Parts: sequence; C-alpha cells; structure tokens
Amino acid sequence: MNYTFIENGSVTSPLGFVAGGVCAGVKAATSAAITKAVKANESAVIPNGKRDLAMIYCEKPCAAAAIFTKNLVKSDTIYVTQEHLRNGTAQAVIVNSGNANACNPDGREKAERMCALAAEALHIAEDDVIVASTGVIGQPLPLAPIQSGVAALRDKLSKEGGTDAAEAIMTTDTVKKEWAVQLTLDGKTVTIGGIAKGSGMIHINMGTTLSFVTTDAAISAAMLREALVEAADVTYNMVSVDGDTSTNDTLAIMASGLAGNTPITGKDAAYRAFTEALTAAFRQVARKLAADGEGATKLLTCQVSGAKDEQAAKTIAKSVICSSLVKAAMFGADANCGRILCAVGYSGAEVDVRNIDVAYRSAKGEILVCQGGMGLAFDEAKAEQILLEDEINILITLGDGSATAEAFGCDLTYDYVKINGDYRT
Amino acid sequence: MNYTFIENGSVTSPLGFVAGGVCAGVKAATSAAITKAVKANESAVIPNGKRDLAMIYCEKPCAAAAIFTKNLVKSDTIYVTQEHLRNGTAQAVIVNSGNANACNPDGREKAERMCALAAEALHIAEDDVIVASTGVIGQPLPLAPIQSGVAALRDKLSKEGGTDAAEAIMTTDTVKKEWAVQLTLDGKTVTIGGIAKGSGMIHINMGTTLSFVTTDAAISAAMLREALVEAADVTYNMVSVDGDTSTNDTLAIMASGLAGNTPITGKDAAYRAFTEALTAAFRQVARKLAADGEGATKLLTCQVSGAKDEQAAKTIAKSVICSSLVKAAMFGADANCGRILCAVGYSGAEVDVRNIDVAYRSAKGEILVCQGGMGLAFDEAKAEQILLEDEINILITLGDGSATAEAFGCDLTYDYVKINGDYRT
Repeated sequence: MNYTFIENGSVTSPLGFVAGGVCAGVKAATSAAITKAVKANESAVIPNGKRDLAMIYCEKPCAAAAIFTKNLVKSDTIYVTQEHLRNGTAQAVIVNSGNANACNPDGREKAERMCALAAEALHIAEDDVIVASTGVIGQPLPLAPIQSGVAALRDKLSKEGGTDAAEAIMTTDTVKKEWAVQLTLDGKTVTIGGIAKGSGMIHINMGTTLSFVTTDAAISAAMLREALVEAADVTYNMVSVDGDTSTNDTLAIMASGLAGNTPITGKDAAYRAFTEALTAAFRQVARKLAADGEGATKLLTCQVSGAKDEQAAKTIAKSVICSSLVKAAMFGADANCGRILCAVGYSGAEVDVRNIDVAYRSAKGEILVCQGGMGLAFDEAKAEQILLEDEINILITLGDGSATAEAFGCDLTYDYVKINGDYRT
Repeated sequence: MNYTFIENGSVTSPLGFVAGGVCAGVKAATSAAITKAVKANESAVIPNGKRDLAMIYCEKPCAAAAIFTKNLVKSDTIYVTQEHLRNGTAQAVIVNSGNANACNPDGREKAERMCALAAEALHIAEDDVIVASTGVIGQPLPLAPIQSGVAALRDKLSKEGGTDAAEAIMTTDTVKKEWAVQLTLDGKTVTIGGIAKGSGMIHINMGTTLSFVTTDAAISAAMLREALVEAADVTYNMVSVDGDTSTNDTLAIMASGLAGNTPITGKDAAYRAFTEALTAAFRQVARKLAADGEGATKLLTCQVSGAKDEQAAKTIAKSVICSSLVKAAMFGADANCGRILCAVGYSGAEVDVRNIDVAYRSAKGEILVCQGGMGLAFDEAKAEQILLEDEINILITLGDGSATAEAFGCDLTYDYVKINGDYRT
C-alpha cells in the first residue's frame, strides 16, 4: 500500500486546481417550471439557497479522460464532453444540479452554451471545458441562472472551494463526497482528489453518477483513461442503489502534471502505483455512494469468494446487492438466508448450489446462517444484533474456485419510496 | 374470441375435480420455530387459524404437465414433482404455504413424505401426486401438522372447495386468485380452471409463483405442455413485482378428458382455441398477481408498440415495469417521463431513442408526456388525475418496426418495504 488518504482532501488538493460552487437558481427555476409558477427559462425565480452550479479550473491545460453512462438515452452534456475530450485535453469543468438537461429538444445547444459561458469567464478555449448536469430529466434547462451566476462563480474559485463544488453537485445526496489521496512517484509527491454525487438512479452498469477527479501526476491522456477504466471496474461499476442507470453518468479526470514526476506513458510500475491509489480512493467513494443511497440506513457489501472466475464472482455479488428482498430484509434486520441463496440462484452465474456458505458480519460479530446450500439453525438474537449495525457485510463462500469480488449497496427503506414518489418538485 | 370467463369459477369448475384447503398449522409451527417458541417439527403448536394446506384431486388419472422456476436454487418439491410427471400423468396436488421447504437438508425426504401422505389418503399412486410448498426458505418443514391434517383435508374435498384451496396457498397475498374459462371444442363444452398465489419474489424469468390449473379437455400431456409454455410466455413470464425469482415457482396443469372432445394430440385448430383461452385466463391472472404485488396500490402495465422485433418489445416493457424509480414515481402519481426513457435506454434492447413516444393512460384519460425522445410540456394537473387511478397503462411507441409486447407490474410502496423488512415471523 503506497498511498495515504488526506484528511479534508478534495478536488482542489492536487497542484494547480481551484474550484467553487454557488447557488445560481437552477434548482429553484426547474421546480418552478414544473409547478407552473413560471415558464422555464424565466429569470424571475428567487434562488432557494441551495448550491447548484459548480466549477473546477486548472491553471494550465490538463491531460483528460472520461467514461460515461451506457444508457442509450443520454444527456447532450455527454455528447458535448465527448467531443471536447477527443484531443485528450481539458482545463475546466462546469456542472449544474437540479436539472439533467436530458431529453430536451434544445439540450445540445444549452450544453454548448454552458461551455461557452465557462470558457468566456475563464478565458480558455470552449473545447477545453467538460460539461455535466444532474437532476430532473425531460425539463428544459433554465439557462438564465447559469448565465447570471457564472461570473460570481469564477470569482469564488479557490483552493478552499472544493467543498462548495462538492455541495453544488448534490441532488438527493445527504452528505458531500470529497476526498484526496497521496502517493510518491520517483521521489515526487503526487496527489489525486475528487468530488462525487450519488444517491439514486445508481446501478452497476457504469453507475458512476457524476464524479470529477483531479491529479497533479504527469500522465498521458491514454494512460489516464486506462487507469480510470481499471479502477472504476471494481468500484463504481460494482455499486447499486436501485438498479437504474442514469442518462447523465460521467466520471471525468484531469491531470495537471505539476507534481513533476516522470510522465506515465505506459503500464509501468508508476502506472500500477497510480492506479492502485486511484482504485483505493474509488472504493471509498463507492462505499460512500452506497451508504448514502436514497433513503438508505445501512451500507451493505457483498463479498464473494471461491468462485469459478471473476465474472461469476461479480455476477453473484451484484445479484445479491441488487435484490429488493435482500435489501428490505437488511432494513428489517431479518437474517433471512433464503433470499441470499435465491439471489445467488437466479444471478445467471454457474454455481454449485450444494457448496454455498452464507454469513453476515458487522462490527458486532459474524454469524453463519447457511452451510452447503442448507439453512442453519442459528441464534436469531445474535443475528439481529449483528444486523442492527450501520454496515453489514454479506459473505458468500462458494466451492467452485478461487475468484473473488465485492459489490456495494444499501438497504431498501420507506424513505427510498418517499424520496422517489415525488422527486421533481 | 371463442371463450367465456365463468363467474365464481375455480380449479374445481372442470369436470372431475374436487379441492379443499384447511388450517393444518404449518404457518404457526414455522413461525414458532423461528422465534424459538418450539423446535421445528414439534406438534405442540396451536394452529393460527390461517389455511395452509391445500389439495386438488381428480376422480381419474389426468394428462399432466408443469413448468418451474429457472432459479438454480430449487425447492426439493420441484425435483419430486418433475420425477412424478415424467410419465405425463397425475391425479392430485398437495401444497402447503408458510414454509417453502427449500434449502433444508431433509427437504427431499419431506417432499416425498407429503406425496405419500396424500397418496395414502386418496388411495392413489405416490407418483401421481404433484407437490409444492411456498413460504419461508431455509427453515425445516414441520411435517407433523401435515401428517395430522391430511385426513381432514381429504374429507373436505368438494366441488365448492376450490376457494378454500385458493386461500390455503396464499402467503402475503391479500386476495384469493381463482378463475375458470369455458370454450366449445367440436360441440363439447370444455372448461379450464385454476388457482394461483403471488405477491412477492415475482419476476419475469418464469415468475409463476404457485399456480395449479385443471381442465376437462381431452389433450395429450405433450400438447398440454406446449399450450402451457406458449400461454405462460406472454403472461406469467411478463409479470414482475420485485425482480426476485423464487426457488419454488411451479405452474402445473392436469387434464381429465371428461369433456369428451376429440383428444388434442397436435397443433390443430382445437389446440389453438384451447391455448387462446388458456392465454386469456393467464393474462387475467398475471394482472391479478401484479395488482396484488406486495404492498402494491396500483396495477401498472407497459404496452410497447412499434418495436424492431418481439424480443426488443418484451425487453423494453419488462425494463420499464421493473424500474424501482418508475414504480416509486407511479406510487407518487408523478408523471416523470425521464425515468421511463431512462429504463428504455438501459434495457439492452436496440432502439432509436429519437423516435420514442411515451403516454400515460388510465380510466381518467390519456396524456402524452414525451414525443420523439423529448420531454413535452404537459398539463401536470391532468397527468396527476390520470395517475391517481388504480390501474395505469404506460404506453411506449417506438419507430423501429411493428412488434408489440405487454408487461405487468405494480408500484413500489412503503408497504413493500414493511412486508419484507420482517417477513419470517
């Protein structure tokens, strides 16, 4: 382990980056348009105090890469960002919450306009801007608040502003997600930092929600992309809150090179060390995204071992973590092993069902509830005590091989239903 | 349309069949074992008044067929029934609720014992008995209540007993599901009847829950099986309550031949008429299963048209009906079209997203919320009025071809979480 997490680290921890987040009024204007208080795009809406516009800026152009949702229905922000990253460089991110700018006839035009506004304020090229949006789908994006808010946002960009940016990209998130991690590459301190938003519409198929990562490492855009894909594969791609994959998922990374390490251009030891640190950070984010899933009261993780191959291990871990019945049982602290076995059985993975052991583990201890595919008589009181904790690990041991996998999820609660029964207003 | 639904019809409507259901005490004994009030199998438990043991009997051996869950983890009742149906004949069904007899070391032995008890009481061969169980997984099946209840159950078998049988197979179901339909085949009246239980752990992959169907048609076991598969494919296999596929799903059919029609032995006009009636009945059951999904307040159906092929239409309809976000929005009467588009986009089906129209329909009218893949400004008050109804049809029109499909589901509510947070006791 060659990396250290930095306390209070954020997207601005790496050399060269500043950030900020303000309340521009996108959230208020979108809500008002839905409830017909005003027409979309009208600027007469009073911002509701919630930050909803964020910016990240680097003093120099960066190597950059991003991965996106696999949903066929995509926000236009994704197409615009894809084009802007074609040359592998970027210098700033602009992102709003409250409105996803997806499934709108004028989405493309507005996504481009957001980039132009940011570029103008920062005196950089339009195609060096990464743009993203998150919030209600299918409502015209109110551009007026962004237009009038961007100058103030630029003026607030600072080293301390990462936390405001983290707040400004939140939708139904209850906690800000920001982090930074450090490692040493040929004697130089390299820092990686990031912010993320999660909560709902999160699933394993590149279920990244919005995440923006910065680093001062010197690394080529191609290697940055490789590292991103590799790290996301076992972290972001193993999180599920509700099985829904968003139209806007974007995980973008920018590298300033200011750390002064020998540039990483191939899969050498430095690449491995960088990717290991990135993966560790992403794993922490994945846990935070799951723990802060909409309505969640518990973080659930599922560790599968003894699988035939990694694919089978992943398939099973994801199936268990996605099961509504398992999620509801965990909310109720019910040590139902039948639902776990059931989810293993329908996962689609090949497995010898006579060799499945299942245990629950938490800070209060561990209890085996199934052995060799058969339910055990276990101490229900002890099981309940274990399951009342905030973090539950579901341990599944198979007898098919030596592959392992881990998936991240949360319980299914009344509040998930409440949050999503009336999301738009 | 050559069939008619019979009012108050049930599994006993076809000639030759009687049925019954009693409170034997399986539910009470299973609960008591979990809460440690008594050891499993002890007979000192006072039955709680809920019917939990059902029997269906035909005066003569029947042609018979069944289809089962595709879950790799299966109740032993399924293996026993599969063996008993190898010769294509059966004469009785015995089924308990309260305990699934799945994932238990002695499951096989007890499933066979249930068949022996039924065979002994009815003076028929053991391998002419179909056995099924439903309820908690991974708890030893208390056999004592079944042993002591089976004689009383046999004595109660009657033409009126179908409704008691329907009640005895219920778990978290809130309404009994029984039906019968009639058609004429070469001048003879042919009747098909059935009972079903549903509620939770229902998904599209042969998500049949338990269903027992009888008919007095003369038809070979092979053709009975063909008709069953064909009818289930567009009905039972298109229902999802929670995306979980049970370990016990069994859909079995027995044909007494007492209607006196020319036996159906090939895919002729009589086969088509029979299958059409069976499909219509199953569609009604599918709607009932979805409407009575755990915690459901609304029946949701999704009708897809204009798809490239049937597979794409089915994939999209199922994806929409399974989306937790769509289900929660429908509970909240929120006409969010973004979630529908999103679920179409991640379904995995090939679709031109620029040609998707989405409308909601109910008894209160119809409203278009998305056209050509773009959200429309619509009358929110009218939309809410439409979505407050008990049955909502989500209409998706694609521009890719002429294939159609229909899927059945329900909203996601607080009560789903409540029911499944503490299911076992």
